[in-house]
Amino acid sequence: MAQAHSSSTSPIRIGIVGYGNLGRGVEAAIAKNPDLQVVGIYTRRDPAQLQPLHAGTPVHRMDALAQHQDRVDVLILCGGSKDDLPVQSPQLAAQFSLVDSFDTHARIPEHFAAVDAAAQGGQTTALISAGWDPGMFSLNRLMGEALLPDGVTYTFWGKGLSQGHSDAIRRVPGVAGGVQYTIPVDEAVEQVRSGTRPDLTTRQKHRRECHVVLAEGADADAVRRSIVEMPHYFDQYDTTVHFISAEELARDHTAMPHGGFVIRSGSTSDGVSQVVEYRLQLDSNPEFTASVLVAYARAVHRMRVARQYGCKTVFDVAPGLLSPRSAQELRADLL
Amino acid sequence: MAQAHSSSTSPIRIGIVGYGNLGRGVEAAIAKNPDLQVVGIYTRRDPAQLQPLHAGTPVHRMDALAQHQDRVDVLILCGGSKDDLPVQSPQLAAQFSLVDSFDTHARIPEHFAAVDAAAQGGQTTALISAGWDPGMFSLNRLMGEALLPDGVTYTFWGKGLSQGHSDAIRRVPGVAGGVQYTIPVDEAVEQVRSGTRPDLTTRQKHRRECHVVLAEGADADAVRRSIVEMPHYFDQYDTTVHFISAEELARDHTAMPHGGFVIRSGSTSDGVSQVVEYRLQLDSNPEFTASVLVAYARAVHRMRVARQYGCKTVFDVAPGLLSPRSAQELRADLL
Repeated sequence: MAQAHSSSTSPIRIGIVGYGNLGRGVEAAIAKNPDLQVVGIYTRRDPAQLQPLHAGTPVHRMDALAQHQDRVDVLILCGGSKDDLPVQSPQLAAQFSLVDSFDTHARIPEHFAAVDAAAQGGQTTALISAGWDPGMFSLNRLMGEALLPDGVTYTFWGKGLSQGHSDAIRRVPGVAGGVQYTIPVDEAVEQVRSGTRPDLTTRQKHRRECHVVLAEGADADAVRRSIVEMPHYFDQYDTTVHFISAEELARDHTAMPHGGFVIRSGSTSDGVSQVVEYRLQLDSNPEFTASVLVAYARAVHRMRVARQYGCKTVFDVAPGLLSPRSAQELRADLL
Repeated sequence: MAQAHSSSTSPIRIGIVGYGNLGRGVEAAIAKNPDLQVVGIYTRRDPAQLQPLHAGTPVHRMDALAQHQDRVDVLILCGGSKDDLPVQSPQLAAQFSLVDSFDTHARIPEHFAAVDAAAQGGQTTALISAGWDPGMFSLNRLMGEALLPDGVTYTFWGKGLSQGHSDAIRRVPGVAGGVQYTIPVDEAVEQVRSGTRPDLTTRQKHRRECHVVLAEGADADAVRRSIVEMPHYFDQYDTTVHFISAEELARDHTAMPHGGFVIRSGSTSDGVSQVVEYRLQLDSNPEFTASVLVAYARAVHRMRVARQYGCKTVFDVAPGLLSPRSAQELRADLL
């Protein structure tokens, strides 16, 4: 595998499939990686209507992809996990090496099987579920468990904007707009860090904060009740609802910060506690996710060149493959 | 590589070479990993004088190793980086797959070359420089740089007992005993976490705290001055020296806590800051280092079975190889 590290002279050619927040993040991330190059954005929209970040980036119709197999080394799929990726990833993996950010945890085995069949057939390398959770958090769950088998892993999310929960409050009658922040409970994080390995309920780990714009004439109390009692989404949490104006929503709540912690607390012998913590503080969730996808696209290209075909996850990628630097440089400078 | 994940029915047989704090830590760690088994401790001391943690663990003279090639899958080398590993790792890699914790950063390229030649010749797999720094911290430096190429990496060590600095103070005339703790400066850590990417001097990042037992008749002021002015070790730091009794030293300072932080602070577009932090809080430095060596011994065995011969580092190991669980289970449970 060490051989695959040597940097090639021509850049790795990336195609971006889908151009929402994540696709724009990928375009921005590639600009920070001189060994990678965007050769095209592929969209279901009218290409003429799409404004890429960099004016020179070619924009194509999605169906042009079938003819672009020779132009692209790796596709980065930027669609959603609900409707886009379950169809696109297996379909495109038959022809292209690719990276996706499929994040429906429960359906990962099924998605893996579909993508693996296509990638084995097409002799491509397709990495699924990259990003930060699944992705970097998954890696840290795995490493924590492997290094400290006698221990407990805790994942905390936030402070961050949750897309799913924001969508849920926007569906409540009387709500004109709103966002939801997931916030780890400080006391719980401190308890876990101290090495005590507490049992924590859902309510003890996270709280939820909603900023809601009322529709005209809506009953604030009724809206608040509908939110905090909503099954699954809110009823198991301490939830606070703040009513704000449409102006405040637009001014203060358009960023997409997120992050969180993976903490493994274990012991290596009687009374000897060891705590490993991985923490993300992200100003922009989609831009960080995009940066992860881009680094894994580099690894995927190298794995395909090394004929390591099939579906992969972050668990299968040697970390050195993520860096543009040679194995020798990495050992000398970073080890 | 996914194929190598499947767990075999018979345990991986580990030999422990050298039996100080690290060797004992390895014996303790293997007891927490049912898929691994200690088949022998190899020592330069008289085996009859050595007390393993588990009474049943066989103890052999070092020179018995030459005849034990068929009994051992992976050796874990627990000697020192100054005198033991530069000789032992290349020598033993000709016959055995192995893991070492070689931690003289500046000499890693040379050590790698010597071990690689031996391992390629012997068709073994030899992983060097495992542990937490080098090791887990190196991985996080690499990942931070790969994910956020526009950024700065900060490594802070401590609070922890530094063996090298403790040795240095014990060599000062008038010192009967003592220990040194390296402590990250809180303000510096907070500044880095905030995403500002400060330039920090050596003095701004860490301070040093010494607990010293004076020899009879020694001049406390002279001792303090010799310590705080010692070139390289202390002169670039704010150092405090506490004088304590031999009883206090024995009572309060025999544990070997350590830890620290690797923080990558970067930006993914103008004004968008992303901070990734990896933190260790270790009650026992040697026991955690041992746990890392043990997990990498599992990976090394699998890589040798997959004929991935030669010298490796943590950068070359797919994370899934560290876990006893199958790739399928890992995807379903941890991704």
